[in-house]
Amino acid sequence: MRIALLGGTGDIGEGLALRWAYDTNHEVVVGSRDPDKARAKAEEYETELDSRGVDCKITGFENEMAADRADVVVFAVPPYHIRGVIEDVAGVLDDDTIVVTPAVGMNRDDDGMHYSPPNVGSVTALVRDTVPDAVPVVGAFHNLAADRLANLDVELALDTLVVGDDLDAKDIVVRLATDIDGLTVHDAGGIANAPEVESLTPLLINLAMNNDGLHDVGITFH
Amino acid sequence: MRIALLGGTGDIGEGLALRWAYDTNHEVVVGSRDPDKARAKAEEYETELDSRGVDCKITGFENEMAADRADVVVFAVPPYHIRGVIEDVAGVLDDDTIVVTPAVGMNRDDDGMHYSPPNVGSVTALVRDTVPDAVPVVGAFHNLAADRLANLDVELALDTLVVGDDLDAKDIVVRLATDIDGLTVHDAGGIANAPEVESLTPLLINLAMNNDGLHDVGITFH
Repeated sequence: MRIALLGGTGDIGEGLALRWAYDTNHEVVVGSRDPDKARAKAEEYETELDSRGVDCKITGFENEMAADRADVVVFAVPPYHIRGVIEDVAGVLDDDTIVVTPAVGMNRDDDGMHYSPPNVGSVTALVRDTVPDAVPVVGAFHNLAADRLANLDVELALDTLVVGDDLDAKDIVVRLATDIDGLTVHDAGGIANAPEVESLTPLLINLAMNNDGLHDVGITFH
Repeated sequence: MRIALLGGTGDIGEGLALRWAYDTNHEVVVGSRDPDKARAKAEEYETELDSRGVDCKITGFENEMAADRADVVVFAVPPYHIRGVIEDVAGVLDDDTIVVTPAVGMNRDDDGMHYSPPNVGSVTALVRDTVPDAVPVVGAFHNLAADRLANLDVELALDTLVVGDDLDAKDIVVRLATDIDGLTVHDAGGIANAPEVESLTPLLINLAMNNDGLHDVGITFH
């Protein structure tokens, strides 16, 4: 599959790009609003993979070109940029494109991080309401430990959760996620259940802040 | 320590009563609005422990008597009963009593369970606002798999989280939780961080509903 990682220059995007390129034969395309930054990051990922004996082509483009003809488009961008990035690429999204959203709305105060979803209830619901009609949306990859994901020396041994109302699209995302070595995927239900999934992210940050040894913490459900 | 489990006849209360009685030397007192029910459950727990060669005394009382002179009072009651039960026992709570709240506000619809906190932001905050001033409140034990907790044949191998603003009280609850074999405790920060902890419970129920093999699911953070 051709996977476009919009915001593929940030930490979760970087991790997903590296892992898919390293563990699978899927084609990875890095997107950014700045095409030079996208190209530079794609080259950096290629160099990293080359140093590990993996010969693969990762390309970098401005977001709309990156999303064009992708089977799966991951919006690995901060939640306050999502609407804008969706608008930038809406012309190339159709019902054959699966949109994946890993973003979480949070705010920080003296106590820590707090889940702060948009009015529609979750970022996943916001994305569903913003993409063109009939484009299936799946929430996934929210609760991954970004540094571990991006460090190919580390065995992941982590779980991630998916939510979505289009069962075929969700199934494809489950398979794409399972293709990453050491990642176990569980189904958290429909998009109505996204808030409880997204709110894991501030929880994990709070645990990292308050406990020695949980700097880059992930989860296993068992 | 003397631990009163109000609502100690329900599933999370049952599990905590059995585990503390089995794994530790803490004194366990079961509380209920109905003293006959409390006594019957206490006897049932004693019989269960006796069958495993553990000779210990578990007593059962009406809630106020159970809470009287307890070091720690756990309100293992549904969230819509918490205010009432706190009012019933307020006369015997003082700044030497640590109040522990494992309850979570949820509602269910066709999609699954959803976190539904009270207006003050979390059940933990509601309990803090309802107990007499100066009584320290700690949120804990929300995300335990109840059936596994209550089944002494099962090795727990689970994590649980604590939140609280009184660090001494939180430290005592951490130690009491750690005294249970197979339970690892992490600090999620202050009561302001309780929503992200409490919302794990509907998430776990949604995972149990949507995945084979996750019937009584718990969490490990690592």
